[in-house]
Amino acid sequence: MELGASVAIVDSSVQGCGANTYNIAPSRDRVLLIPLDIGDAADFASEIRAADVIFNLAGEISHTQSMRFPERDLDCNAVAHLRFLEVCRRVRRGVRIVFAGTRQVYGRPQYLPVDESHPLDAVDFNGIHKLAAAQYHLLLSNLGELDAAVLRLTNVYGPRMALDLPWQGFMSVFIRAALLGEPLQVYGDGRQLRDPVFVDDVVDALLMAGAVERLPSRTYNVGGAEPLSLADIAACFAQAGGRSTVRCVPFPEGRKAIDIGSYWTDWSLIQRELGWQPRIKIEDGARSTLEYYRRRMSHYTDAPATEPFREARGAEALEPAAAR
Amino acid sequence: MELGASVAIVDSSVQGCGANTYNIAPSRDRVLLIPLDIGDAADFASEIRAADVIFNLAGEISHTQSMRFPERDLDCNAVAHLRFLEVCRRVRRGVRIVFAGTRQVYGRPQYLPVDESHPLDAVDFNGIHKLAAAQYHLLLSNLGELDAAVLRLTNVYGPRMALDLPWQGFMSVFIRAALLGEPLQVYGDGRQLRDPVFVDDVVDALLMAGAVERLPSRTYNVGGAEPLSLADIAACFAQAGGRSTVRCVPFPEGRKAIDIGSYWTDWSLIQRELGWQPRIKIEDGARSTLEYYRRRMSHYTDAPATEPFREARGAEALEPAAAR
Repeated sequence: MELGASVAIVDSSVQGCGANTYNIAPSRDRVLLIPLDIGDAADFASEIRAADVIFNLAGEISHTQSMRFPERDLDCNAVAHLRFLEVCRRVRRGVRIVFAGTRQVYGRPQYLPVDESHPLDAVDFNGIHKLAAAQYHLLLSNLGELDAAVLRLTNVYGPRMALDLPWQGFMSVFIRAALLGEPLQVYGDGRQLRDPVFVDDVVDALLMAGAVERLPSRTYNVGGAEPLSLADIAACFAQAGGRSTVRCVPFPEGRKAIDIGSYWTDWSLIQRELGWQPRIKIEDGARSTLEYYRRRMSHYTDAPATEPFREARGAEALEPAAAR
Repeated sequence: MELGASVAIVDSSVQGCGANTYNIAPSRDRVLLIPLDIGDAADFASEIRAADVIFNLAGEISHTQSMRFPERDLDCNAVAHLRFLEVCRRVRRGVRIVFAGTRQVYGRPQYLPVDESHPLDAVDFNGIHKLAAAQYHLLLSNLGELDAAVLRLTNVYGPRMALDLPWQGFMSVFIRAALLGEPLQVYGDGRQLRDPVFVDDVVDALLMAGAVERLPSRTYNVGGAEPLSLADIAACFAQAGGRSTVRCVPFPEGRKAIDIGSYWTDWSLIQRELGWQPRIKIEDGARSTLEYYRRRMSHYTDAPATEPFREARGAEALEPAAAR
């Protein structure tokens, strides 16, 4: 919107996925909010027809929830995208779409840092289904039906994340604990590497992929400035919070099996081709994240930290693998 | 059955997928036929519980149909498998499953012959969904829930294929034309390489992967003895039939985009680890295939050679990409 665009947001606000209208309160009167699932794209086809660029950020990001409710994950992360893209190509052939993919499609890294040529070997249902959705975008682009870019994102953090959905990843858990002065728990020895990337950097990457006249490539890795151990990341947030300690604890049962070990992004392709690079250091990102939340905690922790989706289709048939 | 096993067949006999009870007529009284979809596995859980080995051969193999009806392909090739495996791991944890995967997951070869490390880059919906299904098998095996092998099959041919389903691939089209004395049409210049593998060789590979005590790997390529041009393959069947010619014709519209160029399998891994190799040469395979059909044509060409699935879920929303 700051760049002068008219913006429409499509969000079905599924419980447990982090939708929060407070996040768009500052611009609520200037944005069109379409409260639908992207799979029901036929119901907002006229908005798609009018779009210059589509940022497809929809989906469930939880690895652990995908293991408990695989068919729900399939619905959110593959079926809905197939339906959405089918409408896009029908009413707005050739439209630029920037899809928020995930590093999860690479699975356990076979080498570091991970570039776009790294073998694909997802270690959970979430990775399998996100890969299918990314491939839909690429396939339809190869056919000339769409003009898509897939950004494979590492762990994204920053203001406006849900803090009451621990299954959405460790960053929100760290942030919440740092804000509440609780200990930050790290699984294992805490030496696994990650490269969290600040949300403003990701927004830049999305905009660049959306605005560039011609996409030199279709798949780009997007990650943080440098690899950090989980213990160091935790320490950084604990320090920014000022009241927390960091503790190493054993992996919860069933969690180790889908852990990917160390991960670290080679983002040189998007740097070379689109001029993007991460600019926010973790210390600054942690500080500004906590600053954002300090006066607004009630907007992000009101919801009960319970698990949703028990009633999801197929859920009754699915025993959690982790529970055995 | 020749090896002494009790065999149950699960087949929903979906129109257009090649099910033909004539194929099992010789052993009809010794096999349990379960006329259900694998996605309804809860309804035959007791048979799964009793299984020593499961050969998961279910699915739609048509690339072109997947492009016309992607959501139907998703249902057949991913959703049904997710539901099936969920029941398998619940009632028969750790069971050996041999899954009939496809070379299609590799997409256009980046090098030849294609080994199991080749990058995955499906060029059609069929490849995307077959990959998801293969990954379900591998994921659940990594978690210790199943003990699966995925065979990535090249073009399989031989007795008992449907001959009235041209969208299932060029081999059945060649066989039908050779039997009827019609010209065999090859797209493009006919120099694209393929390595068709005779069905008896594939059955051997399936049995070996099912019977081996411990699987050294989980993914194996299975292909023919040598690479042959499409023109040579066509000539071989034309000669075996004795009445046909071979013609090069331009690619039909929309077909070129999902063609993968030349493909040729590196099957040295399964040779090294399981002792399998293709034994039937194309000349012998072509001859015995045509011999099989000559006295049985009416059992394989009775069905009208029309397209099914027009009423498939979502079909009304899907314009064929190829039609534009």
